[in-house]
Amino acid sequence: MSKRAAVIIIGNEILSGRTQDINLPFLANRLSELGIPLAEARTIPDIEAVIVQTVNELRARFDYVFTTGGIGPTHDDITSASIAKAMSVEIERNPMAQRLLEEYYPNKDITDARLKMADIPVGAELIYNPISGAPGFQLQNVFVLPGVPKIMQAMFEGITERLVAGPAILTSSIVTDLREGKIADGMSLLQEEYPSISIGSYPFFKDRRFGVNIIMRGTDDGELQELTYAMKEMLKLLGGKILDDDEDG
Amino acid sequence: MSKRAAVIIIGNEILSGRTQDINLPFLANRLSELGIPLAEARTIPDIEAVIVQTVNELRARFDYVFTTGGIGPTHDDITSASIAKAMSVEIERNPMAQRLLEEYYPNKDITDARLKMADIPVGAELIYNPISGAPGFQLQNVFVLPGVPKIMQAMFEGITERLVAGPAILTSSIVTDLREGKIADGMSLLQEEYPSISIGSYPFFKDRRFGVNIIMRGTDDGELQELTYAMKEMLKLLGGKILDDDEDG
Repeated sequence: MSKRAAVIIIGNEILSGRTQDINLPFLANRLSELGIPLAEARTIPDIEAVIVQTVNELRARFDYVFTTGGIGPTHDDITSASIAKAMSVEIERNPMAQRLLEEYYPNKDITDARLKMADIPVGAELIYNPISGAPGFQLQNVFVLPGVPKIMQAMFEGITERLVAGPAILTSSIVTDLREGKIADGMSLLQEEYPSISIGSYPFFKDRRFGVNIIMRGTDDGELQELTYAMKEMLKLLGGKILDDDEDG
Repeated sequence: MSKRAAVIIIGNEILSGRTQDINLPFLANRLSELGIPLAEARTIPDIEAVIVQTVNELRARFDYVFTTGGIGPTHDDITSASIAKAMSVEIERNPMAQRLLEEYYPNKDITDARLKMADIPVGAELIYNPISGAPGFQLQNVFVLPGVPKIMQAMFEGITERLVAGPAILTSSIVTDLREGKIADGMSLLQEEYPSISIGSYPFFKDRRFGVNIIMRGTDDGELQELTYAMKEMLKLLGGKILDDDEDG
């Protein structure tokens, strides 16, 4: 059985629409490559009670929880303290985190605000930050990462070895010019025939034309290829064009 | 007191990382403009039990809930049935929805699969679709919209008059080349001085340079301008440059 993950995007900026989050797509993609399906994602504000409740709910339901955002030095960075509260542990000045910060900010450039980033829940294992010093941390099955995408991404790559990967999830996709209503029945029959593959149907409307992107995902390459072939035959039979296709995974 | 909203993005495709959602940023932005703060967003899979539970939790906690995705004609479109289940009402063939579909698909092009899109929970009010016929619907405080961004956006604009708008949330932003650790204390003091304005601090790392984007949000224009001025003075005092700034709302 594959491990399952949840992601918590912490930040008022995403909810206000001012900033478009790109951490969720990154994590969704990398977790998928690692064979760890992302089961749910939540975007929540910088409010302690909400962070505590969300973390507690998701860490009980899923194998891994990843949070992004709110671990910097400013007044609105309350993630570390909130995670400690959720897990009922204290926050302490972590000597290793302090050393990493002191190395990164030489010449006494290390302000009190910056040292706040060394305040880490007791018992947490640090997550190394190869770009800007301040570490993230792992506490039980919760991985606490920063919000800045490039830094988050670099730090995520450093923790993949702590995760139990599952069978890679392979994807096959077909784009057709037919409308969903025309292919729904055939697709439904094929879904019944290949229950272990998840068939998704994503209509689009682009340059004033409609079409459907059919995505098939599963772990058995042979079955996936068989289904892809059958799906194309079905589409051609209905008079459809195969506009584009690609297989990866 | 402003109304508060939640958004539920329904779709395996977003969770798999294959598709990047752009419906959440759109809704976050429009709701913000309407003075209806978005309090939480969730991305969930096409699984009935998950949809039912998520809808029931959020509709109890927030004034408005918007869902996107899963109301098309294919096997993986289970949102309407799941919403009906969550609200304990039946699904019925809605005569008005059927008429809209028949008008949109003339010449008997209306398949059984397409007619499935006229199956709407009893008691729901339709949401008109100016682009592709199939309507969405509103049931109590839950607004059910499609996943295709352009269609979702057009349909959202048709329901804004059903929403109780709040005072517009004004935003002021400043970009500086200083690091967060340097400005954290000053920003914290200003936050205490202006408690009704939410000050967010968003570090970035771009072209190998660090900086901070400071976002101030509130409903009182005078206070917002005062704070913006004070914030700039504080940054200059610390030797910082104001790289860019804009005020909107």
